Amino acid sequence: MKYRALITGATGFVGGYTAEYLHAAGWHVSAIVRSTSRCDLLPPTVRDHVQFYDADQMPLSEIVGAAAPDVVFHLATYYTTVHSPEEIDTLISSNVTFGTKLLDAMAQNSVRNFVYARSSWQHYHGDGYEPVNLYAASKEAFDAMVRFYESAYDLHTIRLTLFDTYGENDRRNKLLAVLPTLAAQGKRLALSGGEQQVDFVHVKDAARAFCLAGEYLAQGRTELCGSYVISSGHTVSLRELVRRYEDLLGVDFPVDWGAKPYRAREVMMPWRGGRILPGWERTYKELM
Amino acid sequence: MKYRALITGATGFVGGYTAEYLHAAGWHVSAIVRSTSRCDLLPPTVRDHVQFYDADQMPLSEIVGAAAPDVVFHLATYYTTVHSPEEIDTLISSNVTFGTKLLDAMAQNSVRNFVYARSSWQHYHGDGYEPVNLYAASKEAFDAMVRFYESAYDLHTIRLTLFDTYGENDRRNKLLAVLPTLAAQGKRLALSGGEQQVDFVHVKDAARAFCLAGEYLAQGRTELCGSYVISSGHTVSLRELVRRYEDLLGVDFPVDWGAKPYRAREVMMPWRGGRILPGWERTYKELM
Repeated sequence: MKYRALITGATGFVGGYTAEYLHAAGWHVSAIVRSTSRCDLLPPTVRDHVQFYDADQMPLSEIVGAAAPDVVFHLATYYTTVHSPEEIDTLISSNVTFGTKLLDAMAQNSVRNFVYARSSWQHYHGDGYEPVNLYAASKEAFDAMVRFYESAYDLHTIRLTLFDTYGENDRRNKLLAVLPTLAAQGKRLALSGGEQQVDFVHVKDAARAFCLAGEYLAQGRTELCGSYVISSGHTVSLRELVRRYEDLLGVDFPVDWGAKPYRAREVMMPWRGGRILPGWERTYKELM
Repeated sequence: MKYRALITGATGFVGGYTAEYLHAAGWHVSAIVRSTSRCDLLPPTVRDHVQFYDADQMPLSEIVGAAAPDVVFHLATYYTTVHSPEEIDTLISSNVTFGTKLLDAMAQNSVRNFVYARSSWQHYHGDGYEPVNLYAASKEAFDAMVRFYESAYDLHTIRLTLFDTYGENDRRNKLLAVLPTLAAQGKRLALSGGEQQVDFVHVKDAARAFCLAGEYLAQGRTELCGSYVISSGHTVSLRELVRRYEDLLGVDFPVDWGAKPYRAREVMMPWRGGRILPGWERTYKELM
């Protein structure tokens, strides 16, 4: 039985690996992209086997109808650490409105299985909701919209809460992605004290969690609906993580620790709650 | 001491009465309106004493700076009972994005007192969050955005949860507002069985709750920050409510009870949780 996936965010980091993993696992994969999405940057294994639908050219209800997915994987997101006032429209339209329209299109087509990504930053202090930044608030706002479709249309949902991810071909402006480049260029990087604890999972492990969640829903295992964390289960300091990364790559990274202050609302200890999706465990444990 | 209010939704039903009440209570009242807002429909007491700012002509940060409010009252909302797909953009931009931009403008101007309206329909079944409709979900989504400004900017917030309201000059398409008109025209109205329980508060009592909440915040009584309900404290069936309304007005309303089925997700019993704002009680008890 070959399941059909419809994915958003396939041109992003975790979404790209998820699309690749789904294809490798035998799923038929369709992707919703924007006219501005850089599909050309996708690995050929994804690019050549995914059916792309341009949301700027075709209504979402028609896309969902044409793709006829068993499961919709929603990983598209607009990320900003510290928002500017000018970003509020884009932040909410990307992280709340687009996903709501996708859910509405699913309801119109009686598509009921939904896997999507939340952020550990929705839990600044403990298990309750407290957002680190406006990005995290917009993710919680979307959770509120999802709840309507669960209640009114019997949507089956698995929510996967992402912490930090790393891996090859990371085009995001993330520390582990830029350090090797800076080292190769001989440039130094000024960072904070590095005592903040972090929780990194390899992107391929994260992608496997999304795929597994989709499989459960496609198999009708609705008892597994709910929230899970894509977490290593422990933390290390950022400084220790970079030291291990140096060992792993056999490179010295030119970091000036303590040269910058910690950010306002720096997350010194990531959320330690949540539960792991049954059947998922990490394969990549070289960093933590 | 004359406090300064900045209000949204002043051309709406509860917002209009709140603006009027604030003015009568000695507040200096400014209002954020849209180019399309019907300010001409406001009662002269409001229209002539409120300073209007057009959000389509002036950035919100400048409006908040110019109005220099002690308290911002956010009552603007876009209401739809059963949304159409085409309404999703307007629903979210009105109920989530606009309010978020308002909060951001407050943060930029160090304005920290915020009173706003939630909906009892965010509690379809019990105290937890479960939205009756997508409108209620969008209100909960806004709650999630507010939480960020409370946490990051020490915003002081009083949330007032509205049930049903009634009173003179109600231009909303609500049962108690249209019944007298239909009766005068000799038209009959087909309704559901009327056994759904309802909780109505007179709009002047509701307006007084908003004003009182603002006074508390302006006085620095931050211990009162939190959520309160604008509830009569009990319920009656819709059929009984209409009977009492007939008695009150001395009119027979031409209603065909049971001629229509109950709506999908009809609220048969409104939320019975929450607490009343200290110091507030109803004056109008003629209907329930």
